[in-house]
Amino acid sequence: MGKKINLTEALAGMAEHWEPRTVAELNDYDVRLVKVKGAFVWHAHPETDELFFVLSGRLRIEFRDGAVELGPQELTVVPKGVEHRPVAESEAHVLLVEPAATVNTGTAGGERTVPRRLL
Amino acid sequence: MGKKINLTEALAGMAEHWEPRTVAELNDYDVRLVKVKGAFVWHAHPETDELFFVLSGRLRIEFRDGAVELGPQELTVVPKGVEHRPVAESEAHVLLVEPAATVNTGTAGGERTVPRRLL
Repeated sequence: MGKKINLTEALAGMAEHWEPRTVAELNDYDVRLVKVKGAFVWHAHPETDELFFVLSGRLRIEFRDGAVELGPQELTVVPKGVEHRPVAESEAHVLLVEPAATVNTGTAGGERTVPRRLL
Repeated sequence: MGKKINLTEALAGMAEHWEPRTVAELNDYDVRLVKVKGAFVWHAHPETDELFFVLSGRLRIEFRDGAVELGPQELTVVPKGVEHRPVAESEAHVLLVEPAATVNTGTAGGERTVPRRLL
């Protein structure tokens, strides 16, 4: 029998921005919750698509050739290998779905890389 | 560059209950949107876990040994091979994530089986 995850409660226990927590596992995929604010680093995931679903606030996903603006109840899939930079002017709460092996900074690496962390 | 999907708009174009529409593709997975009301059939998916995320309304997922009750902002993963029956007393709107090959009625089959359908 499955376990219920309440995202509002999960978010209440999260403080840092840009540090996703894995709230559920779906086969070899993760469902991750993240609080974001400000600009993240440009990066790409050569091996996988990545789903962004905005729960609250607004998220702009910048691409080299444009941007997608997402509000609550809106989602997009960043295709594998496509460079992108997520930006939020104010705090936003976002659900991510991607393979469990996916690293937050992709091929960019650097100081904003965080290990996979369960809620 | 990704395409933006607004779930509120997508739901406005959907009439039938228990007939998921694929609103986005993530590698070989589908993100599906479904309106539900009443009781679905008991079934299982021997090959995959299945994510249920409630957008609005309430959804009860019955198992042979209990049930999980989900409201808005709540999600659960039904483990592969586990028999379950989704039930909604009133209309609820649910986001599903599962492999694109997943059939809505799993191994149960029958008249409520619907083909994969893009939005």
